[in-house]
Amino acid sequence: MSKSQQAESTGNATSSELQRRISDEVREPMPGSRRVWLNGERPDIRVPVRQVLQSDTGTLFGGEPNPPIPIYDTSGPYTDPDACIDLELGLTAQRSNWIAARGDTEELPALSSDYGQKRLGDARTAALRFPNQRLPRRALAGANVSQMHYARRGIITPEMEYIALREGMQLEQMTDSGLLKQHPGHAWGAALPTAITAEFVRDEVAAGRAIIPANINHPELEPMIIGRNFRVKINANIGNSAVTSSIAEEVEKMVWATRWGADTVMDLSTGKHIHETREWIIRNSPVPIGTVPIYQALEKVDGAAEELTWDIFRDTLIELAEQGVDYFTIHAGVRLAYVPLSAGRVTGIVSRGGSIMAKWCLAHHQESFLYTHFDDICEIMKAYDVSFSLGDGLRPGCIADANDAAQFAELETLGELTKKAWEQDCQVMIEGPGHVPMQMIKHNMDKELQDCMEAPFYTLGPLTTDIAPGYDHITSAIGAAQIGWYGTAMLCYVTPKEHLGLPDREDVRTGIITYKIAAHAADLAKGWPGAQIRDNALSKARFEFRWEDQFNLSLDPQRAREYHDQTLPKDSAKVAHFCSMCGPKFCSMKISQDVREYAAAKKLDEAAALTEGMQEKAEEFRQSGLEIYQKE
Amino acid sequence: MSKSQQAESTGNATSSELQRRISDEVREPMPGSRRVWLNGERPDIRVPVRQVLQSDTGTLFGGEPNPPIPIYDTSGPYTDPDACIDLELGLTAQRSNWIAARGDTEELPALSSDYGQKRLGDARTAALRFPNQRLPRRALAGANVSQMHYARRGIITPEMEYIALREGMQLEQMTDSGLLKQHPGHAWGAALPTAITAEFVRDEVAAGRAIIPANINHPELEPMIIGRNFRVKINANIGNSAVTSSIAEEVEKMVWATRWGADTVMDLSTGKHIHETREWIIRNSPVPIGTVPIYQALEKVDGAAEELTWDIFRDTLIELAEQGVDYFTIHAGVRLAYVPLSAGRVTGIVSRGGSIMAKWCLAHHQESFLYTHFDDICEIMKAYDVSFSLGDGLRPGCIADANDAAQFAELETLGELTKKAWEQDCQVMIEGPGHVPMQMIKHNMDKELQDCMEAPFYTLGPLTTDIAPGYDHITSAIGAAQIGWYGTAMLCYVTPKEHLGLPDREDVRTGIITYKIAAHAADLAKGWPGAQIRDNALSKARFEFRWEDQFNLSLDPQRAREYHDQTLPKDSAKVAHFCSMCGPKFCSMKISQDVREYAAAKKLDEAAALTEGMQEKAEEFRQSGLEIYQKE
Repeated sequence: MSKSQQAESTGNATSSELQRRISDEVREPMPGSRRVWLNGERPDIRVPVRQVLQSDTGTLFGGEPNPPIPIYDTSGPYTDPDACIDLELGLTAQRSNWIAARGDTEELPALSSDYGQKRLGDARTAALRFPNQRLPRRALAGANVSQMHYARRGIITPEMEYIALREGMQLEQMTDSGLLKQHPGHAWGAALPTAITAEFVRDEVAAGRAIIPANINHPELEPMIIGRNFRVKINANIGNSAVTSSIAEEVEKMVWATRWGADTVMDLSTGKHIHETREWIIRNSPVPIGTVPIYQALEKVDGAAEELTWDIFRDTLIELAEQGVDYFTIHAGVRLAYVPLSAGRVTGIVSRGGSIMAKWCLAHHQESFLYTHFDDICEIMKAYDVSFSLGDGLRPGCIADANDAAQFAELETLGELTKKAWEQDCQVMIEGPGHVPMQMIKHNMDKELQDCMEAPFYTLGPLTTDIAPGYDHITSAIGAAQIGWYGTAMLCYVTPKEHLGLPDREDVRTGIITYKIAAHAADLAKGWPGAQIRDNALSKARFEFRWEDQFNLSLDPQRAREYHDQTLPKDSAKVAHFCSMCGPKFCSMKISQDVREYAAAKKLDEAAALTEGMQEKAEEFRQSGLEIYQKE
Repeated sequence: MSKSQQAESTGNATSSELQRRISDEVREPMPGSRRVWLNGERPDIRVPVRQVLQSDTGTLFGGEPNPPIPIYDTSGPYTDPDACIDLELGLTAQRSNWIAARGDTEELPALSSDYGQKRLGDARTAALRFPNQRLPRRALAGANVSQMHYARRGIITPEMEYIALREGMQLEQMTDSGLLKQHPGHAWGAALPTAITAEFVRDEVAAGRAIIPANINHPELEPMIIGRNFRVKINANIGNSAVTSSIAEEVEKMVWATRWGADTVMDLSTGKHIHETREWIIRNSPVPIGTVPIYQALEKVDGAAEELTWDIFRDTLIELAEQGVDYFTIHAGVRLAYVPLSAGRVTGIVSRGGSIMAKWCLAHHQESFLYTHFDDICEIMKAYDVSFSLGDGLRPGCIADANDAAQFAELETLGELTKKAWEQDCQVMIEGPGHVPMQMIKHNMDKELQDCMEAPFYTLGPLTTDIAPGYDHITSAIGAAQIGWYGTAMLCYVTPKEHLGLPDREDVRTGIITYKIAAHAADLAKGWPGAQIRDNALSKARFEFRWEDQFNLSLDPQRAREYHDQTLPKDSAKVAHFCSMCGPKFCSMKISQDVREYAAAKKLDEAAALTEGMQEKAEEFRQSGLEIYQKE
């Protein structure tokens, strides 16, 4: 089905409006790239990888061909020109057979949540509703369908196989080993694999060191893993508020976010129609979707935190779990006794969920129902395989409040809750700060690993200073790269609008690219196998003046090209052996090539001999500083 | 004299064109700020400081007044509405009397460099020439006028007194000590002072741990210091190339750069009229100006590196020293024997100066004349007090080449040259990389401190990955914040255009703010006394919904306001007790205030008692995690 046919096939006004608003721009293939598949042992495991195709090295430099460079791809089918996308149908439910084949779930005759039923029957929102809703699925009575449960029983699921291929990208099959050279990493105690097998994935999930957020009601997703012995991941937040945004905008933002590299997307909507918005997002999302259920619950009591009850919350969890939300932020660590610890802070409680629960605790003068009902929550999580993202409701909102009593009291409680969740084989990750100056970041990581027994850490930044609103993607990327290096498994992006407003599409792009940088810098520093291949390829292209390849290998090819064109717009400049920075006379790259030619012609032997032992020293450095990527 | 009068008073077409092109925007006072002066013991020492004026806390939060927040100011008189600026006259030569009073210099009857004379007599460039040129000054025969020379003889210069006030900002006089609270730093062996005295400044300069770049022919500058026991500084590069830019643009860029916070500016021009451009820049610059003299020398041999000679280079050094350049990048560590070490690199030699010298060495098969004539260079440096910035001509240009034999061989030579320079009491800083993955950054700092005996390190980034052209301000800010924390004294900014084109005005702004973030994050992490005051003030303003104060305390007030206005443009939103992110119902800040009210009303005693020992724990954290800024 062609794109124009798709447009014709859309039904009512609302959805064709949605269709129209998914802009061509987000469906454009990434430049110079193709989508290929890595095949698993089972025929139904096909992992998409983007390959950047490179041109040959110019004859001046030897004229050799340059191999395609594989890139971990989060964009799902949207960047595939051959894929048929119809937002009204949603993406292909590729995991359905895997889930059904396990034989431990059932399709329910109807939604089990009161609220889900109510919204389904609400004529006022009919036009907004996702048209192709399927019936929800749930674990059979007494069954546990979490990936952790399978892992602990020694079962390697298709999801695990998929992930092993996705993380490893079959780099060991690359013939040009030069590109696989990389510096030894410093992994701070992480145990990175040399080869990523499905058994390794299983083992990490069983141990609780990694999670696979994959609700059985979100069969459309491409499985991914969050854990410090895997590639560092990033999350992008989207969502409307009472003040702005529409459903169409949010769906487009989700697709846009995955295009640039979001590994998961959190829908933090707090405005109108958040139930309907969420359904559209999940049905069309190739990445796991996280939410904060308390936001939806609060809508149900019209914003009066003190009117929240366990029953309302419970119904909300079921509502969201049956839509297919893959992980829930649950602020169960905000205990009544910790609330006074925040009273002396400069910025009090800055987490929305945290402040809602604090208000509830104070109003009732009771322990948080999230804490007292934690086992009940686990029962729901394991029936749909929703992962916990244990929220840091008391995270510091400014440098002054970093690492304080309130923050760390909550973190210790999150460790206690992790234990409880694991007793029921529920998957858990732990949310972290926030605002932390650099010298105090490492302690956050160390304490999390200890208190929460190596459950994956998922941090917001941290922001390393408070003084740059408008640039908090950068204040936080500095902290994110560091904590990612130290062991954080997923980095929640921060956009330039943080503290000031809601991100628009360009802010989402900037936030994501910034966090891809932080995550990749962390992968390099940890020594993730093959992490350096893209750096090596891009730098080689740069040195050889292969401008197009340099752009295409970039995190943001359009931006790189646009900046280059601002000074040298002509096509001829794309093959020029100099650039606008230095002009032809000063080009250091050009001079370096002269150096190579001299070296090749052996004219340098004598020069090298001038300083005795220099060659030995060079060899010594080469041996200590570089290693060839180990095949198995 | 008002601004319109100034405009009238400009003379010929060229300079009034210049006048017009200094836009009103760069002369606008920073919002909500005033310029005040700290007075030294001598009446002619007056140090400008920007103060951000704050509104009172709203009655809801107690209604107390909030003190003005002092901010280190690099903008010179340009942001002072009362200052008279005439680009044709240049800035006031406030250091002239200090220099003359030392009695060790003389005003020369004419420029001493052949090239300077030649350009002065060139009718074709008469219209471009700065009209108010003064005669150059030089040390008396046999005299040494470097700040290091004075420092080592126990002399505290007015420059040192000025710097002590500027670095300390008399924070100890602030009455609201709450704002001065900060976390203990981790300084990695740096010996930060608790109080900054002129004697401390002298001692650091005498030891070579800090430099005061202050050419006696640049009396217009406001003295500043570069050393790891002071605030971390940043440098902005400007300059035209053979491909783009005009004099007026470069002068405007310099002013623009100091407005946003550049502590020094390097003029890296390689295009036309670089001699004249430099003169305009220096005469109007309140910050030290650095250059790479080899670029100018190469122009003189029409780009043929092999035709460079010591005589041409020597004449260039004198030409630039008599214009008032405050520091020279000299790539004297690129020795003939090191050139072959770069042959196996992925990106060869990426430094322009480095590649020029490598080409020269190869062409002549001789040791670099910069290395063999190093003592002669020192003679010139000490006669004008030009500081060395020993260039890293062999810095790595990609992740793969980081920390290799070529880079570190050069660094060791820079240490050897530092010793030589210090024997003549010449001031020295050391340039550093480049592209380095995070796990290899610390070794760069440690090796520099050891090999170069704690001479200040001045690094470009480092970039922590190669894969994000268009975002290299960010890839490098991640590295810059870290290396600044570890001990780098000055961070050379990188703009979004790095590797792609020349920065325009907006790129300069983005690059500088990004690097102010990195430098400030480093100050916080090291524990620079009072570093946290601006964070504390901004966060308090944020919590109390004093939006205007929050904007004004930002590194980029305009940007912060603009982003806020995109979602909530109305003036009423600037006093609203919520924002666009959450809307009124979800506002966590608002809920936190409820928590405080409860706490104030002692309703929380019982809650607090629920978990035994929590209060003690809180107290324990408070004592370990926060310290009051020590007054002397």
